[in-house]
Amino acid sequence: MTDWTKNQLTKRLGLRYPIIQAPMAGAATPEMAAAVTRAGAMGSLGVSLQSNDATRAGCNSIRSKTNGSYNINYFVHNEATLDSEKAERTRDYLATYYEELGLGPVPAAKVSSTPFNEKNLALMLELKPPVLSFHFGLPKNELFSAIQNAGIFTISTATNVLEAQQLEDSGIDAIIAQGFEAGGHRGTFTEPYEDGWIGTMALVPQIVDAVSVPVIAAGGITDGRGIAASIALGASAVQLGTAFLSCPEAAIPDVHRAALKNARSDKTRLTSAFSGRPARGLENRYVREMAGREDEFPDFPILNTLTAPLRKASANAGRSDFIPLWAGQGVGLIKTMPAGKLVETLVTETETAIKRFS
Amino acid sequence: MTDWTKNQLTKRLGLRYPIIQAPMAGAATPEMAAAVTRAGAMGSLGVSLQSNDATRAGCNSIRSKTNGSYNINYFVHNEATLDSEKAERTRDYLATYYEELGLGPVPAAKVSSTPFNEKNLALMLELKPPVLSFHFGLPKNELFSAIQNAGIFTISTATNVLEAQQLEDSGIDAIIAQGFEAGGHRGTFTEPYEDGWIGTMALVPQIVDAVSVPVIAAGGITDGRGIAASIALGASAVQLGTAFLSCPEAAIPDVHRAALKNARSDKTRLTSAFSGRPARGLENRYVREMAGREDEFPDFPILNTLTAPLRKASANAGRSDFIPLWAGQGVGLIKTMPAGKLVETLVTETETAIKRFS
Repeated sequence: MTDWTKNQLTKRLGLRYPIIQAPMAGAATPEMAAAVTRAGAMGSLGVSLQSNDATRAGCNSIRSKTNGSYNINYFVHNEATLDSEKAERTRDYLATYYEELGLGPVPAAKVSSTPFNEKNLALMLELKPPVLSFHFGLPKNELFSAIQNAGIFTISTATNVLEAQQLEDSGIDAIIAQGFEAGGHRGTFTEPYEDGWIGTMALVPQIVDAVSVPVIAAGGITDGRGIAASIALGASAVQLGTAFLSCPEAAIPDVHRAALKNARSDKTRLTSAFSGRPARGLENRYVREMAGREDEFPDFPILNTLTAPLRKASANAGRSDFIPLWAGQGVGLIKTMPAGKLVETLVTETETAIKRFS
Repeated sequence: MTDWTKNQLTKRLGLRYPIIQAPMAGAATPEMAAAVTRAGAMGSLGVSLQSNDATRAGCNSIRSKTNGSYNINYFVHNEATLDSEKAERTRDYLATYYEELGLGPVPAAKVSSTPFNEKNLALMLELKPPVLSFHFGLPKNELFSAIQNAGIFTISTATNVLEAQQLEDSGIDAIIAQGFEAGGHRGTFTEPYEDGWIGTMALVPQIVDAVSVPVIAAGGITDGRGIAASIALGASAVQLGTAFLSCPEAAIPDVHRAALKNARSDKTRLTSAFSGRPARGLENRYVREMAGREDEFPDFPILNTLTAPLRKASANAGRSDFIPLWAGQGVGLIKTMPAGKLVETLVTETETAIKRFS
């Protein structure tokens, strides 16, 4: 049995295994995060879509279940400005879908959520999660410094070498190298976004060579073979999202859960049509019909205010047509079992994969 | 030291190492293939762009230098039909480039090369290369059967699980799982092509699970870390192209060679604008300016007849603007050394990567 606790990242975070469950805002739950941490990996909770009160309750819930390391994740997008013309055009596109679902008129677009702000910072300094991770770059300098000064371990995502170098220069503690295969939102924060469409196999070793902080591989890693492969590439740990989506602890609509069963790895697509930023999910009617129109939509996260009612109504109606079926390209390898049991299984699979070398 | 000769593929082909140098039509040479084979891996020669006489000379050249296994590769595209409207539109697009390079009028488009045909078959049955590999699917049934009956080991490329299953059903001996990261032409043979845009990390284990023949990982594998990672994913061997492009044995224009130096992994793009089929190379002026027009171009390989003079003139003028700078996303990891020495280096690196598990 490999002793995983020796590497710089697992040692620093007190993990038995170099495995992180991805924060998956809206899908991960405190129950999932706690179960993963209790099993010796690191659980995460994405809190961008919820209030500070809900975040406090989520952290307290995790802490009531485990003393181990867990990770709170924020989206740190740029301040969005409302482009009325784009918003109106998008409302026109969506009107027929709203009608089809008996939803009435499309609501007015608004700037719904702000980037990581002073109130979020105050909450994090109060709760002091062992790890705070970010997607879409880093918070403003003064906020990020306050987090570092509080001794919280920080992680952010890079989708290419330049982003990784930029993160290291900012003093980040570890970097997620997120490959093209990954489900959900791409963490890219430099334009053009296409420059971050690099597969995990090529991305991880090039980021490992470019920075001196620990690198966490992500994207298409769904079983122990992918974990062993990532370690071989030079990663200190892996982050898996899609692998945990079918766990009973995941808070996804039943139609999403059903779509993941027997899903084909060649049927995921990158789309900006739900939130305004590119994210990977299974193709459905909405993704198909909106393909090619993404440039006409309002910026992240404004677009969410126009699509949210549609997503909710679609889920309630048991229809997968209009909900984001987030999934990475490893979707064909996912297993349905409790999150803690999944961690154990992944570790066993990793040991089996390593035996190929002996 | 790992004993690589035990696996079903290396044993069958008599290789010391589970490494295949990609055939890279136009870039690989008999000298490269022979050097790779002599070093214990398998050299390949892509012969689609050349005459049968040149292919015979190439095979004989390899055989004069080594008794080991080598691989001849053919493109087995569908029979192309000339769409005059598309051809005329493309000639219009290209006219300004022709003028810029002092080339005179754009030639008429023509069906330049045929798919793998009876004459190619006769040549292969005469030369009997130990391995014959195909890109874009398989030759017509009767031709493929003749190859199998001759006892030649056959390989073809899959870019998704369904393609792999189709190849296995046809009786192929081994399957290359070609990930999104790969340089040069994508081997996809089922439409829509996008369904084959799956990263190596996600693709390899899913194909390994779906078929019982040996799987060869390809795409973004550029050093020993990628080789070890591929073995962990379940691959029996790897195929590397980009890694060999800077070897002195490669027959690429000087401007291509220069572009590979310090090339960035985030600056490759998929483009159909050179040949009519999607292929990955470094972005240059032509790729940038033709982006979004690919659907208007004539089919593979007809488009080649329109772009060939431009490519040649661009290379002769020492300009990288109009030549395909084929490269995979691992381009930031390539080394410049003789092909045989590179094989030795890759093996040493692989052993080092494996040590991460002990």
